Amino acid sequence: MKTKSIVSLALCLLLVPVTLFAQISRNQSVSSPQVRPGGEVTFRLKAPYAKNVEISAQFLKGNQPLQKDSNGVWSITLGPVKPDIYPYNFIVDGTSVSDPTNTYLFPNENFKASLVEIPAEQPLLSSMQNVEHGKVTYCYYPSETLKCTRPLVIYTPPGYDGDNTKYPVLYLVSGTTDTEETWFKVGRANLILDNLIAQKKAVPMIIVMPYGNMLTGTPAPSTLQAADMYKVFSNDMTKSIIPYVEKNFRAIPDRESRAIAGFSRGGGQSLFTGFIHLDQFAWIGSYSAYLTNEVWDKYFSALSAKPEETNKKLRLLWMGVGNEDFLYKDAVKFIDLMKEKNINYKSLITDGGHTWMNSRHYLSETMQLYFKK
Amino acid sequence: MKTKSIVSLALCLLLVPVTLFAQISRNQSVSSPQVRPGGEVTFRLKAPYAKNVEISAQFLKGNQPLQKDSNGVWSITLGPVKPDIYPYNFIVDGTSVSDPTNTYLFPNENFKASLVEIPAEQPLLSSMQNVEHGKVTYCYYPSETLKCTRPLVIYTPPGYDGDNTKYPVLYLVSGTTDTEETWFKVGRANLILDNLIAQKKAVPMIIVMPYGNMLTGTPAPSTLQAADMYKVFSNDMTKSIIPYVEKNFRAIPDRESRAIAGFSRGGGQSLFTGFIHLDQFAWIGSYSAYLTNEVWDKYFSALSAKPEETNKKLRLLWMGVGNEDFLYKDAVKFIDLMKEKNINYKSLITDGGHTWMNSRHYLSETMQLYFKK
Repeated sequence: MKTKSIVSLALCLLLVPVTLFAQISRNQSVSSPQVRPGGEVTFRLKAPYAKNVEISAQFLKGNQPLQKDSNGVWSITLGPVKPDIYPYNFIVDGTSVSDPTNTYLFPNENFKASLVEIPAEQPLLSSMQNVEHGKVTYCYYPSETLKCTRPLVIYTPPGYDGDNTKYPVLYLVSGTTDTEETWFKVGRANLILDNLIAQKKAVPMIIVMPYGNMLTGTPAPSTLQAADMYKVFSNDMTKSIIPYVEKNFRAIPDRESRAIAGFSRGGGQSLFTGFIHLDQFAWIGSYSAYLTNEVWDKYFSALSAKPEETNKKLRLLWMGVGNEDFLYKDAVKFIDLMKEKNINYKSLITDGGHTWMNSRHYLSETMQLYFKK
Repeated sequence: MKTKSIVSLALCLLLVPVTLFAQISRNQSVSSPQVRPGGEVTFRLKAPYAKNVEISAQFLKGNQPLQKDSNGVWSITLGPVKPDIYPYNFIVDGTSVSDPTNTYLFPNENFKASLVEIPAEQPLLSSMQNVEHGKVTYCYYPSETLKCTRPLVIYTPPGYDGDNTKYPVLYLVSGTTDTEETWFKVGRANLILDNLIAQKKAVPMIIVMPYGNMLTGTPAPSTLQAADMYKVFSNDMTKSIIPYVEKNFRAIPDRESRAIAGFSRGGGQSLFTGFIHLDQFAWIGSYSAYLTNEVWDKYFSALSAKPEETNKKLRLLWMGVGNEDFLYKDAVKFIDLMKEKNINYKSLITDGGHTWMNSRHYLSETMQLYFKK
């Protein structure tokens, strides 16, 4: 324990990420995950009665078995792992379990995963660095559309409280089974933007993170049924969320100063909302998402009938997807549709799958484009 | 699923708590916990390979076994349960597991528990009600004492953003193994104060929730070793936290407008910090905590030598503890010490143990006293 405290303090002196610091230095009987310089990481779980413990981690292709010691502590050392932030969980005799001694959790409706950060020599864009930090605020808005109080998580950039400047707003929507906290806790939207602002690579902006679940069940992505759900979302966005934000935060209230983007279901919601309200949004980002030809034809044929007019309004349509994503083919089909319809766009095909590692990557790329002249 | 959506929507219409709404209406394959009018609650866990599943809940005296159905879903219906918010977890073949389909988690360093809210006919003070809501902001301060970036969670009351008023500040410290999120997510300090402000029972105030872990290990409560840790905390509070808060938030910068209170270890830290910095704090709250005679004699004999002078400075010393708390005898001994030393105080002995149900109760009582003339 003494060695651990010294290691913690040394790390603390280096201004390491709060979350990494949290993972390593909070007091606990079993330390997990333990990340070593170079990217090796040891996971541990005290489970003296378990017969079999495995780990599932998004840097692994399959599950790996842990070994039990005489104190009933199971462990495994893996890596070196490529620097990034990865979800993982244990599987104890067939049941998924988050890491009990890791406070860094993945907010989700359907599973409880933990997160591990593997730091890089050059700090990750998503790591806490020694720069000025914005604030992340939890607040509640009255949803006229859903007739209830709903949560919003809102980032304001460094300096926001010290001036009277108005800022552009990125509305950033998370995916199916995610919550309003996921872009903050897993997506690290706040730290990525802190770092990009410090590097003068992004415009200071407000980020609004709503809860994307419209209580309509989970229709298949981008079907006409999904479009019905997107409509509910669009209504909530324009009738309740935007008015709440522009009343309570110093947001520039014009379309050129509003972007909408999201991951997975949130990407579908963003494409639909952005296109159906081009009067309200000029910037659209789709991370690992798409609309079907069917949805496009039903709702947006007027936009592709006059592409020049549409392109004048659309300051950016950005689409990114990983080549191992289970939505890869559909997303590429939508990119092809935009090409065919002469709608201007930027696209990025990366390695990897339908992951938050990719989602953060796409956010990092697009934050450098939004609201630029 | 359809029935569930309708139930969700109906509940949503009633402006139920976001967290309750979250528990019930987020999409998931297995619904847990399911709270029924009257206070019965069903817990479910899909664990087809488990041999034995039990539930541990803070409204139960011992663990209760769940029954498995043919789909591998284990369940148990309990209650009626007295309205409150309770931590619980499953025990799957001896391993503690949070509820995978419940997004409402207990932030903690050592365990992962879920939370269930049992609503009352007259809404709980800690429930989301149809009143104006303050905001809860996550931010980072540079800790001179600990030489690193540390997190703070800060509540600002309704109206804060619309005026230039300055507010008094309650510094509110959580307990051993808790994190800076625990007073927000489990303690519901924000909702309790929203409701008390709406009922005109509390003064609008800022609440600052620091991370109480000083990276010094976990000395036995209130020993001289613990006092060494309290000193580190006090230094961090006065040298870094208060200056950060008063620079970045509209806080009234005088002792009459600063209270410090906490639960468990946070109560010890608050008693020590409040007494050692009576120049900075006029209001002290101890929830399920105490200082030993030894610590008092070493650090505070000057205060008890001139009780009249001390009482003039001390606008409130409030101490609450439950008669089943494992610290009950020690806490009562400290109350007796204050009596013997002629230090003015208010105390409250309740039923119950060392729980967040009591902690919220004590917070609710004291928030009605802090900063009143």
